[in-house]
Amino acid sequence: MNFLEERIQKDGIVKPGNVLKVDSFLNHQMDIALMEEIGREFHRRFADKPITKVLTIEASGIGIACFAAREFGVPMVFAKKSHSINLDSEVYIAEVESFTHKNKNNIIVSRKFLNADDRILIIDDFLANGCALQGLIAISKAAGASVEGIGIVIEKGFQVGGQIIRNLGVHLESLAIIDAMDAETGVITFREQ
Amino acid sequence: MNFLEERIQKDGIVKPGNVLKVDSFLNHQMDIALMEEIGREFHRRFADKPITKVLTIEASGIGIACFAAREFGVPMVFAKKSHSINLDSEVYIAEVESFTHKNKNNIIVSRKFLNADDRILIIDDFLANGCALQGLIAISKAAGASVEGIGIVIEKGFQVGGQIIRNLGVHLESLAIIDAMDAETGVITFREQ
Repeated sequence: MNFLEERIQKDGIVKPGNVLKVDSFLNHQMDIALMEEIGREFHRRFADKPITKVLTIEASGIGIACFAAREFGVPMVFAKKSHSINLDSEVYIAEVESFTHKNKNNIIVSRKFLNADDRILIIDDFLANGCALQGLIAISKAAGASVEGIGIVIEKGFQVGGQIIRNLGVHLESLAIIDAMDAETGVITFREQ
Repeated sequence: MNFLEERIQKDGIVKPGNVLKVDSFLNHQMDIALMEEIGREFHRRFADKPITKVLTIEASGIGIACFAAREFGVPMVFAKKSHSINLDSEVYIAEVESFTHKNKNNIIVSRKFLNADDRILIIDDFLANGCALQGLIAISKAAGASVEGIGIVIEKGFQVGGQIIRNLGVHLESLAIIDAMDAETGVITFREQ
């Protein structure tokens, strides 16, 4: 097991409905030393890519994306979930569905911050059905930028998202892939990578 | 002028309705080196406080709070804006109004992550009417924790929030306080600190 799988095993809590709670260290309370280690690991896995920008989506992707961007020495851009009066009318838009919140949102990135020269590393905390990632990929393509890779902290391997994204031919790295989890026993089964 | 005021002067854009756009470096695209410098500056200003946790609110506070928490070597907790099925029913709740989005939200922190032993540094990107901060203070108090200080990146000094918070007797540090801005000329007037 790698450092992340060990932490999920230790502090993750399985709830009914295939919900994995990692809110004590990843997406509500954040263990900053772990975030830094995740950032370094993404840098190691995409070290051969000439990344110019890290792209994520608010809110829980932001912390991880910050530390990944720091390793690459590039800016981080986060897509916003609703149209704010502080955003330019000049935006890229994609529609995404949230597994957690069971609703649809537009995600928005200002055109100023992505362009055809950008080589993008997309970062997010979870990959389930892949809708958020497909939205971020669509926005990157609309900007004419290339998606050099996608770094995910936890992939739910029993949902379709990972397969959909890999079928697109994108280099996807998930630090932990969960093939099964049992809310009664609390057992989490990781995919051998 | 300090490093932040210089950056606001250089890259901030004043829009009608007292809107200051800093989305090229602070709250949409993030300049990570600047985030780190902000984190170090908050640590310097609250170095005498025995901080156990950094508290912020999603989404644009998260990046800054991460780097502040890193300097103090403590976890970061971010309040969430709506009730998620991934959150415990055991939460602290406060209602806050958003100046930017012109709506009201409940903000929520799981009871697990704040307790009576915590000495909290609250971090946020903007201070305008102070509603978000009052919500975070209310949540801290509900947990029995002490608010050791509040660190703000940009305070709109012409709005009431700063005065309200200072009148509460909380140690508030704003890295830049804007006393006036003019959308026609683009001139930003900083308060001497």
